[in-house]
Amino acid sequence: MSHTVEILSVGTELLLGNIANTDAQMLSQGLSELGLNVFWHTVVGDNPRRAREAVSLAKKRADIIITTGGLGPTCDDLTKNVLAEAFGKKLVFDEGSAERIRSYFQRTGRPMTDNNLQQAMLPEGCTILENDWGTAPGCAFEAEGVHVIMLPGPPSECRPMFQYRAKPYLLSLSEGVIASHTIKLFGIGESAMEARLREQMNTMSNPTLAPYAKEGECELRVTAKAASSEEAQSLLQPTVAQVRRLFGDKVYGVDVPSLEYVVIEGMKTKDLTLGVAESCTGGLMAKRLTDIPGASQAFKGGIVSYTNEIKQNVLGIPPHMLERYGAVSQEVAAAMAEGARRVLSCDVALAATGTAGPDRDDWNNEVGTMFVAISTLRGTHVRPLHLGSRPMRERLRTQTASHAFDLARRYLSGLDFEN
Amino acid sequence: MSHTVEILSVGTELLLGNIANTDAQMLSQGLSELGLNVFWHTVVGDNPRRAREAVSLAKKRADIIITTGGLGPTCDDLTKNVLAEAFGKKLVFDEGSAERIRSYFQRTGRPMTDNNLQQAMLPEGCTILENDWGTAPGCAFEAEGVHVIMLPGPPSECRPMFQYRAKPYLLSLSEGVIASHTIKLFGIGESAMEARLREQMNTMSNPTLAPYAKEGECELRVTAKAASSEEAQSLLQPTVAQVRRLFGDKVYGVDVPSLEYVVIEGMKTKDLTLGVAESCTGGLMAKRLTDIPGASQAFKGGIVSYTNEIKQNVLGIPPHMLERYGAVSQEVAAAMAEGARRVLSCDVALAATGTAGPDRDDWNNEVGTMFVAISTLRGTHVRPLHLGSRPMRERLRTQTASHAFDLARRYLSGLDFEN
Repeated sequence: MSHTVEILSVGTELLLGNIANTDAQMLSQGLSELGLNVFWHTVVGDNPRRAREAVSLAKKRADIIITTGGLGPTCDDLTKNVLAEAFGKKLVFDEGSAERIRSYFQRTGRPMTDNNLQQAMLPEGCTILENDWGTAPGCAFEAEGVHVIMLPGPPSECRPMFQYRAKPYLLSLSEGVIASHTIKLFGIGESAMEARLREQMNTMSNPTLAPYAKEGECELRVTAKAASSEEAQSLLQPTVAQVRRLFGDKVYGVDVPSLEYVVIEGMKTKDLTLGVAESCTGGLMAKRLTDIPGASQAFKGGIVSYTNEIKQNVLGIPPHMLERYGAVSQEVAAAMAEGARRVLSCDVALAATGTAGPDRDDWNNEVGTMFVAISTLRGTHVRPLHLGSRPMRERLRTQTASHAFDLARRYLSGLDFEN
Repeated sequence: MSHTVEILSVGTELLLGNIANTDAQMLSQGLSELGLNVFWHTVVGDNPRRAREAVSLAKKRADIIITTGGLGPTCDDLTKNVLAEAFGKKLVFDEGSAERIRSYFQRTGRPMTDNNLQQAMLPEGCTILENDWGTAPGCAFEAEGVHVIMLPGPPSECRPMFQYRAKPYLLSLSEGVIASHTIKLFGIGESAMEARLREQMNTMSNPTLAPYAKEGECELRVTAKAASSEEAQSLLQPTVAQVRRLFGDKVYGVDVPSLEYVVIEGMKTKDLTLGVAESCTGGLMAKRLTDIPGASQAFKGGIVSYTNEIKQNVLGIPPHMLERYGAVSQEVAAAMAEGARRVLSCDVALAATGTAGPDRDDWNNEVGTMFVAISTLRGTHVRPLHLGSRPMRERLRTQTASHAFDLARRYLSGLDFEN
């Protein structure tokens, strides 16, 4: 049976544009991986009439309705009231939920008002989805052939509530299990990747292969459905292996969060220390590396040398080199990496210098001209980049930092720096 | 006349969760500022039947329909076909648009395929919204009492197309002009700000006052509608002045993009140079400062001292100080700022040290314990922060950096560091 899903989000803050509907995105991704077809996203405000109309339409066209938002006391539990009414259900007081709400307030030391307990009123006979990340419980029920799942709106609650509550409920609707792996690639564009896979993707049904692109990186999600976990894994493994063969060392990891994560983990495993010297990226490399909790076990620090003076005085780059080649050059990139390795006394140092725009630099380098470098015990390597002037400043900086991380993960894996 | 708006987004990538519907957010914000009521967001995939059903519903309930996406050759110009059909309009070839598409491809050096010219087929009698940011033109028409505006989906095109094409069209529907100012605040929570303004906000109708909160900062948008720009400004100014009086030096600017922007511009104006020393923020301060184009005119660089060794060897902090007070302390924050000012030879230096989590540090400091410092010709000031352990790591780091920037903008404006 092929399910069709409507995601119905309730919240005036979405219609005012105060926030983007990231809940709908997160849910859509998760539901697609479960093999469910999301056909509609609908957003209405905290308005009972329009919420009722939206629910009555969703009932007719979808067989799974997932709502987000409208569960708290500030909107009088609009969503719960409207959904219960639409399916002819009463709301009944659930003592277990009330107890959880009371203890939540106790734990966080915030005062509880009476209307918080309204959140313990839930549709009769529903499955309660306990909320360990906030106060409003979610719930799920089936009626008139439609499955209804209600989740809280705040993304920090909606995400775990989907992952740990709604997903198991949805999986119980269908026989078998769903498992997936995410293959991460760097150094190939989305369209080039898709072109090499298109035919195959179209003919595959189990497992499926879905491409995603973001911030100059690509990923492929392989998802399989089977009677057991073991069977799902045995469906997945050949495809993962095949993708690895096809894209070779452009694959930087499977089921890993990011390039910088792979770099930090690799450094930790090999007991190496890391430092950075940044010109055009202006702190972004250090920032991304220290986004990883526990980065301090490998990352020692960095120098943001936004002026030639700091390149000379802090990184020790000879003035004649800056004069002869300019700050945006292969030579200075190498000297920055070597300087950082010395000044920060670390095993591996990465450097980036370039022209991030908006205008050409003093040496008339085009926007998008970048050099990233790595310095190690075994020597120094520089990768020149021509990223073009079309991407925005932010994007150029992100891609440049990623290229530097690519050098580091290649070093850690014993791969050639370029292929 | 009070308009009701539906934003209809067409794109399977939204339903798969590949991207968030940031177009709808951006449009909602812009439309709210124009005094238009957005009552519905709807998303459907590249599916003619469901797109038709969505349009037929939108026609009944909204008097302005704004579509995003579904205009390019990859989806056979689904949106244009469906909307034209729904309002009984033919698509006709527009030579001007064709010419623009040809020259776009010439300019960007990419090969043009024939189906790109399909984009020049537009509803008869429509207002063409020229797209200077991509290939697919937008369009607008009125039929059966409904205004239809079609915009391309990629956010980098949708945003300027709204700003420079759709907005003037919408303004021409109503008499008069709409003008707004955004007042930016730091150092006050959203709920505290709202509590002080709630009564007033509810009674105001022209101008209106709308609060926004993001990343630990707050803003207030004041919007007025009037027959002329001058009249709108004269409605706005008293409210802006009143908000300034009410919140005093918590207001850090009007119509400015960010705290870091105010810091960089202030430094440039006063001909001062800036440097940073970062521990817990790990490069985020430098990154945010260098997000500002032209930052190099004031920002010289930074030291990311993620280990005590670098605090000693690069920033010159005496080992006994680190041993006695620990890296997360008032004393070390001050020494970091002073060290950065010396090592980077800049006029003003900011520093941040703290425990960003996930766990308490070696000295058993709670997550969220932070110190930010500023060192100038006139001395050093440290602000201790207790941000609590509930915000995520990313959020803690962002707030800490913002507090450091707050010290800098207070210094630049001659204000007390604390109030």
